[in-house]
Amino acid sequence: MERIDGRKLDELRPIRALPGYMGNAHGSVLIEAGQTRVICTAMGDETVPPFLEGTGKGWVTAEYAMLPGSTPTRKKRGADGRATEIKRLIGRSLRSVVDLKALGKRTIHIDCDVIQADGGTRTASITGAYLALWLCIQRYMEEGRISVNPIQAHVAAVSVGIVDGACLLDLCYQEDAGAQADMNLVMTEANEIVEIQGTGETAPFSKDQFDTLLTLGEKGIRELIAFQKKLIEGVHTC
Amino acid sequence: MERIDGRKLDELRPIRALPGYMGNAHGSVLIEAGQTRVICTAMGDETVPPFLEGTGKGWVTAEYAMLPGSTPTRKKRGADGRATEIKRLIGRSLRSVVDLKALGKRTIHIDCDVIQADGGTRTASITGAYLALWLCIQRYMEEGRISVNPIQAHVAAVSVGIVDGACLLDLCYQEDAGAQADMNLVMTEANEIVEIQGTGETAPFSKDQFDTLLTLGEKGIRELIAFQKKLIEGVHTC
Amino acid sequence: MERIDGRKLDELRPIRALPGYMGNAHGSVLIEAGQTRVICTAMGDETVPPFLEGTGKGWVTAEYAMLPGSTPTRKKRGADGRATEIKRLIGRSLRSVVDLKALGKRTIHIDCDVIQADGGTRTASITGAYLALWLCIQRYMEEGRISVNPIQAHVAAVSVGIVDGACLLDLCYQEDAGAQADMNLVMTEANEIVEIQGTGETAPFSKDQFDTLLTLGEKGIRELIAFQKKLIEGVHTC
Amino acid sequence: MERIDGRKLDELRPIRALPGYMGNAHGSVLIEAGQTRVICTAMGDETVPPFLEGTGKGWVTAEYAMLPGSTPTRKKRGADGRATEIKRLIGRSLRSVVDLKALGKRTIHIDCDVIQADGGTRTASITGAYLALWLCIQRYMEEGRISVNPIQAHVAAVSVGIVDGACLLDLCYQEDAGAQADMNLVMTEANEIVEIQGTGETAPFSKDQFDTLLTLGEKGIRELIAFQKKLIEGVHTC
Amino acid sequence: MERIDGRKLDELRPIRALPGYMGNAHGSVLIEAGQTRVICTAMGDETVPPFLEGTGKGWVTAEYAMLPGSTPTRKKRGADGRATEIKRLIGRSLRSVVDLKALGKRTIHIDCDVIQADGGTRTASITGAYLALWLCIQRYMEEGRISVNPIQAHVAAVSVGIVDGACLLDLCYQEDAGAQADMNLVMTEANEIVEIQGTGETAPFSKDQFDTLLTLGEKGIRELIAFQKKLIEGVHTC
Amino acid sequence: MERIDGRKLDELRPIRALPGYMGNAHGSVLIEAGQTRVICTAMGDETVPPFLEGTGKGWVTAEYAMLPGSTPTRKKRGADGRATEIKRLIGRSLRSVVDLKALGKRTIHIDCDVIQADGGTRTASITGAYLALWLCIQRYMEEGRISVNPIQAHVAAVSVGIVDGACLLDLCYQEDAGAQADMNLVMTEANEIVEIQGTGETAPFSKDQFDTLLTLGEKGIRELIAFQKKLIEGVHTC
Repeated sequence: MERIDGRKLDELRPIRALPGYMGNAHGSVLIEAGQTRVICTAMGDETVPPFLEGTGKGWVTAEYAMLPGSTPTRKKRGADGRATEIKRLIGRSLRSVVDLKALGKRTIHIDCDVIQADGGTRTASITGAYLALWLCIQRYMEEGRISVNPIQAHVAAVSVGIVDGACLLDLCYQEDAGAQADMNLVMTEANEIVEIQGTGETAPFSKDQFDTLLTLGEKGIRELIAFQKKLIEGVHTC
Repeated sequence: MERIDGRKLDELRPIRALPGYMGNAHGSVLIEAGQTRVICTAMGDETVPPFLEGTGKGWVTAEYAMLPGSTPTRKKRGADGRATEIKRLIGRSLRSVVDLKALGKRTIHIDCDVIQADGGTRTASITGAYLALWLCIQRYMEEGRISVNPIQAHVAAVSVGIVDGACLLDLCYQEDAGAQADMNLVMTEANEIVEIQGTGETAPFSKDQFDTLLTLGEKGIRELIAFQKKLIEGVHTC
Repeated sequence: MERIDGRKLDELRPIRALPGYMGNAHGSVLIEAGQTRVICTAMGDETVPPFLEGTGKGWVTAEYAMLPGSTPTRKKRGADGRATEIKRLIGRSLRSVVDLKALGKRTIHIDCDVIQADGGTRTASITGAYLALWLCIQRYMEEGRISVNPIQAHVAAVSVGIVDGACLLDLCYQEDAGAQADMNLVMTEANEIVEIQGTGETAPFSKDQFDTLLTLGEKGIRELIAFQKKLIEGVHTC
Repeated sequence: MERIDGRKLDELRPIRALPGYMGNAHGSVLIEAGQTRVICTAMGDETVPPFLEGTGKGWVTAEYAMLPGSTPTRKKRGADGRATEIKRLIGRSLRSVVDLKALGKRTIHIDCDVIQADGGTRTASITGAYLALWLCIQRYMEEGRISVNPIQAHVAAVSVGIVDGACLLDLCYQEDAGAQADMNLVMTEANEIVEIQGTGETAPFSKDQFDTLLTLGEKGIRELIAFQKKLIEGVHTC
Repeated sequence: MERIDGRKLDELRPIRALPGYMGNAHGSVLIEAGQTRVICTAMGDETVPPFLEGTGKGWVTAEYAMLPGSTPTRKKRGADGRATEIKRLIGRSLRSVVDLKALGKRTIHIDCDVIQADGGTRTASITGAYLALWLCIQRYMEEGRISVNPIQAHVAAVSVGIVDGACLLDLCYQEDAGAQADMNLVMTEANEIVEIQGTGETAPFSKDQFDTLLTLGEKGIRELIAFQKKLIEGVHTC
Repeated sequence: MERIDGRKLDELRPIRALPGYMGNAHGSVLIEAGQTRVICTAMGDETVPPFLEGTGKGWVTAEYAMLPGSTPTRKKRGADGRATEIKRLIGRSLRSVVDLKALGKRTIHIDCDVIQADGGTRTASITGAYLALWLCIQRYMEEGRISVNPIQAHVAAVSVGIVDGACLLDLCYQEDAGAQADMNLVMTEANEIVEIQGTGETAPFSKDQFDTLLTLGEKGIRELIAFQKKLIEGVHTC
């Protein structure tokens, strides 16, 4: 089977990230996975949500939006059900690798704004948001506002799916639109599952297919985390 | 390890369902899983959403809400992010087993209203919504409005999770609140996965744990679908 | 004249109430007046609205909603003008029999959720809400949170109306839809009027008709309050 | 007993009305009852609400608002529960005297904007809205848009209440604020009741008190309708 | 060239103002510029917006609305983009002549409600709002709540525009609707520009035309400020 | 006087534009004026607003937003009064140079999303939106959807202001924050004024200052339009 863009079944799209893309944000990155492009920023303030008051713990929360021009027909502004679902996923994914106690009494706001959508915007958002968060925390540590790094592990995300019976890694939009089943995987560098969301809306999938998808996804996550580490190293040496 | 309510690790809570609970709805059931109680209704109208106009296909959509008195401290009315996430899950789960072409130009509205919450409200909603949908379709077929049954398979849902290192089936609220990881599984009677949503927010989980949870969940789904079949048989004989 | 359901002109529909219907609410009842069924709950918290701060007085407020499946065609969620009108009526009715000073610095939230609508949902809501409130207060007194019972009298409500020239007690939906005039009466056990809301939209009514309706309503209220007292006695002996 | 403004117990406040107050509206009046001043306008368009489509009937609907400067402390803009209740009352009251069939396929929008509030704003709104409606219909008849006058009777409204044990007609704000019970009466020129809304929130009232209030209200309505007739005559002769 | 209402090119419409129009407001005026009529009120409270807390400064803010009956076809209630733009303009204009430090810790709310619209509602609102503010401040000074008058200069506003190639002062609606360009000018008594907003949507205008318009506007402002001064003098002598 | 960034009083910030920045939009540009960066897109659809139906004319409308990370402290999502004011300004400015008849029955949606804010975001939005619109129209003409170019002239915008008594061209944020007066100018290539919005909130400005500012602005606009022309030429030769 030939993929639409000539990739192998288990091949990620080219991944790129431009750190510091938003000069005013505390941490930011423009991440690109193939034709999908997302601006991820992290900005903290010294407040916490009501349910954490008095606990000494901090919080990480996220928002997700698509710019009107990010899709071939203009997308209206304003959060819909899908955006709500995604922003919650991003928030949970990042919190899973952050020691909220070490973060201290502050909230880090993650914002993921899609500027070009070609499938996998939520997974690119998570992979990029990790980088924005890392850059933000790095800055706060350099400024002496945080003493112990609250980030405990790398986290990244990728989509996998079944198209024409074949299991594919990192679906682009055209593949995603024709998929029988698709799954979003969020994992840490220790190969542990943080979030797994699989949907077989047009056709349920079997346990065997599920295992194949999971293995594919693990491969993708390993490569994405390797990418994150390399990018961070580069920033470090600055 | 002893479970809080004395159940075995792989034991479902007692499940009950009262069909026809809402006299005016086209299909309805009051479903109870332990102390969790949800009213599920199905009501159709002869319209379809804009994106299906002219296709001849129908639609199944869902809403989910908690009554203010369903939790120990009063829950404010109005949809929040969590409710949005759940109503989308319910909708996708039911559509996965419905032939939208056979349903014809109509929308079935599923409403799940929680009257008592003790964990697992979204999975009970799906298991109950299937029954409400079945009753609604049955009535439409009897009235001659639908000729071929568009429901293609049973679908049910259950939660599984890791509490104090142990893998448990069908978490009640107290177990859920202390879980390291939890997963909601939606499956068909053919043992196929329709939706899988796993979260390891406080502690990511490994592939092995994941497999154990999946096996536990499959057992629960089998029992829930057996329950659905028995209940439907009883209704049939009426 | 024959009534649609065979009742006499001055006969209430069968009234039933199931206390403790919502296990998590502080006070609750499922009330049924014929085919009309409403879940009424009462839940308190230790806050008061801004205009009562510093007065030592408490507050009783209400919300009213119809479940989407409560009517033969699905009712959209969300408060409309009618619901706003009704929730204000319920709130005023209950406050009329509560000593807000004795209630102390707390707000009791009454929620009336209609699960089956066949006319008279607002009056059944008031009659049932009284019971939910009583059960809630009883519980707070048992827990020592309130020392003196702030409830000063029974309150109940019933509808009356003119259909085909005849004055009827407790209209069901079909009677209500064809009524020339209808009136909702809220009265205490001392036969005093708390609220009276009469509308002759399709045909104004005369003073004489009004007097007849009032007398009918008084009879209904007496029976409803007797019913409340009997139900409370039963609970008491538990 | 002396009333705060020296009136007799059964005496209306001075009533004035300035027709044509809003040059652009199709019918308008500035009505004043003592210190209470309300701008009432009527404006039609050739549409009807969905539930009347195809019936040939028209509709009369109303909105009610208080200008921010109408009360001694600034009132925030935006409809609250009270405004919702009142606009529904105004709409019902006017529809009760309009033959919707004769009105034809059009909606008359009534707008009541309070510019000075001193009690009785809702009853002044109804009395004034009748005049605005009459002027609007008159204009449409002169323009040949309506052939048969759809207004079937005069309608007016007044408040009555119990203050310090005395039954009073047409309460001003200070009387209203201290009333044990108050009632709004809407009646036609034939002495028939269109709407009656009585509330005894701080103290329920007896059947005898109710009768006294009703008699007082009837007297007030008679005088208000006489006032309406005189004003209309004056307009006629122009 | 003949103007539609016979005015000279540089002639204002007749201007009138009725102070104290809203008995409950702290300062109020009904201002009329030709057929345009606006109720302007000023009401203060002892709070300031969050960004001024702790600064000792006060604030002046404004709202603008059109009554539904103010235009020949009914205008729906609720703020739109145009109203938002106008209320911000009114607020800035008044703040430009107020010493917020001398005003002290309070917010003056200006409300401009158009009851008849015939062009120039925003400029009439500003000219009238100045008077309402002056009356409000005057009252606060008489009550001893403010010691030093925080108003530093008169401010007024007028529109100018190009119609059929001619530069006109103070456009009525029909002129405004056919204007190639129009400009709103807000100036102080010292002939200084506070706000200038010119739009040449259908046809851009040249620098020369602009100068002519500005000169016309200055003449209008001088006359409006003279009018304000005369009116205030009259009030003083009361 | 030394400007904060070393520029001469009448010197623009460096201006750059990257066409085709949003691959899915029909026309797009990333425009940068110094540190201010805005993504401008243009996307058409074949509908028109209700008030243009049946006229054969098209429409150009705009939206404006700031990404949360565009300012040093995170900006909450959602339109406020300022954004409403700006989007209306952008829409009017572009419509002033478009022949809506030649545009035909379609709406072009302009979206300006600020990714870095350092003053002058609204003027950069207009200058960039012109380019996005030009690219969009160019594409539609190449696709044969539009035959005659509806764009009649270049339009660009710039800010001018008075800081410490000096008149400056193209204010950056720090200059803007301390300005006594500032003005936004929108002009065509024929040196004609499309929009002029000047505010002297903290200190009104004189006619002479105004003239100086206008001359400064004209110089800036000339340079910006030269820049637009050069960029378009480059695109043309592709």
